[in-house]
Amino acid sequence: MLEITFLGSGSAIPSKTRNHPSIALEYYGEQKETILFDCGEGTQKRLMEASISFMKIDKIFITHWHADHFAGLIPLIQTMNLEKRRKDLKIFGPEAERFVSDIIDLGYFGLRFPVEAINVDFEGDIIKKIDASEEFEIYSIPVLHTVPAVAFCFKEKDKWNIDKEKLKKLNLRGGRWLKKIKSLGEAEFKGKKIRLEQIADKKSGLKVVYTGDTKPCENVVKISKEADLLIHDGTFLESEDAKTKSHANVKEAAKVAKDANVKQLILTNISRRYTSTKEMEIESKKIFPNSKIAYDLMKVKLKT
Amino acid sequence: MLEITFLGSGSAIPSKTRNHPSIALEYYGEQKETILFDCGEGTQKRLMEASISFMKIDKIFITHWHADHFAGLIPLIQTMNLEKRRKDLKIFGPEAERFVSDIIDLGYFGLRFPVEAINVDFEGDIIKKIDASEEFEIYSIPVLHTVPAVAFCFKEKDKWNIDKEKLKKLNLRGGRWLKKIKSLGEAEFKGKKIRLEQIADKKSGLKVVYTGDTKPCENVVKISKEADLLIHDGTFLESEDAKTKSHANVKEAAKVAKDANVKQLILTNISRRYTSTKEMEIESKKIFPNSKIAYDLMKVKLKT
Repeated sequence: MLEITFLGSGSAIPSKTRNHPSIALEYYGEQKETILFDCGEGTQKRLMEASISFMKIDKIFITHWHADHFAGLIPLIQTMNLEKRRKDLKIFGPEAERFVSDIIDLGYFGLRFPVEAINVDFEGDIIKKIDASEEFEIYSIPVLHTVPAVAFCFKEKDKWNIDKEKLKKLNLRGGRWLKKIKSLGEAEFKGKKIRLEQIADKKSGLKVVYTGDTKPCENVVKISKEADLLIHDGTFLESEDAKTKSHANVKEAAKVAKDANVKQLILTNISRRYTSTKEMEIESKKIFPNSKIAYDLMKVKLKT
Repeated sequence: MLEITFLGSGSAIPSKTRNHPSIALEYYGEQKETILFDCGEGTQKRLMEASISFMKIDKIFITHWHADHFAGLIPLIQTMNLEKRRKDLKIFGPEAERFVSDIIDLGYFGLRFPVEAINVDFEGDIIKKIDASEEFEIYSIPVLHTVPAVAFCFKEKDKWNIDKEKLKKLNLRGGRWLKKIKSLGEAEFKGKKIRLEQIADKKSGLKVVYTGDTKPCENVVKISKEADLLIHDGTFLESEDAKTKSHANVKEAAKVAKDANVKQLILTNISRRYTSTKEMEIESKKIFPNSKIAYDLMKVKLKT
């Protein structure tokens, strides 16, 4: 199970109700893990409001280096330091090494824990695996914005559940070899080669994609294929799209969701001009029915 | 008349109710001017909540470069830029040139207006005039913190109002020479030398001092003499003072207010441990009766 919390659902100019972009993903696996995607101004305040401990965050993924997507890092790192954090914090993003180093040098931090920066490719059309834990993997792909920018994909590893009925039918018994077959895909039982799919059912891991700021693009379709949730830039209605090189409008985002055949679409990075998002929702649902518009502190649970 | 708004009244670790330090001073003179003292995370949000236009801010005074006092500058400058600001923004502070330059280089700003940094002395015990407008002056003096830090003083210029009764008694008439005497302090009327105080009443300009983070110190007493309002670091109760080199406790701050013979004291930079500030207020009032404890969005009007 995982839970997404929209800590900020606004765009570059915040409003009274919408903070700068930030999304927390809490993964409830064998171990609980909390990761952040983007970290705009006010992120630590929203974390408090959402009752998410910022001391539990070990990885932060920054889509690009516009201030509305990263300015919350500076006070967040300061707070972690004041709270006596000692373990590593990893920050991933395009040109992360350069910008994280600039951030650490800014002001008087007196930092007492390691902050590691990991550069992520921002050119081309290849999906790259940039991080992995026991239970999930994180991928990135370049997107179309005015500055180097990427989308991130959280992918829970697929799980295989041994089916006792199938074991019985093949005259097999439980034991250590089942651990081996789960990790290798096949194993021997009394001299007989058995493939995992003969005795187990696959449970696909959850897949969540977050685009950050982007025009609609093929790369996002590619990384979002069959995702359980696509969180896409949907800054404005098609009729109010300034047609800059910066953002997607609602229709464009819904079209991406449809093309990628995702299960659910949530639009975020909502322009401050929209005090009501009813029209946005209607526009999106016409193309992709399972659409929602994000708001600050909105929570979404996903179960396998 | 001037109005002070506490945009953030918390200390280094913010809480749900207290933001990082920032104070807006709106001066209603011939021209309205809005200036900021410190600019922690969330300042632009609080400005919106207080209905203060951030496009009207031309001068920002940073007491020192700990992130809780400056991190709001980055998204504030980005918003000003997106809102098509073209006029200068001046940022004053100890080592301002170095830190403002670092801030401007951070991320992709694409800045289209000039940001000027003005260094302020942070050593010694001299009150320095660092800025002046037609109607007020700003002074600074070094304070005692773990890093270079200063206190700022806003001083409205004294005004002289011509007293018609006094003119009459001295057989004088109105005219251009009154403008001259107001600016020079004396002038001639039909060959007779007249001093300003013979014909006018002095109205002392308002004086407000903000300390930023500091241990109690003589420099603050010096710059606060007879101030209408002293806004002093009052992070904790005396009994919970960790005795670090960073902050003043309530009693110490109240003692400074008393020694400087100010009219009013407001304590700010309140530690997040205090959900109620009743005890702080009692402790402060024992030493300095006209004491208050700041809270976010608290407004204080001062009239000459």
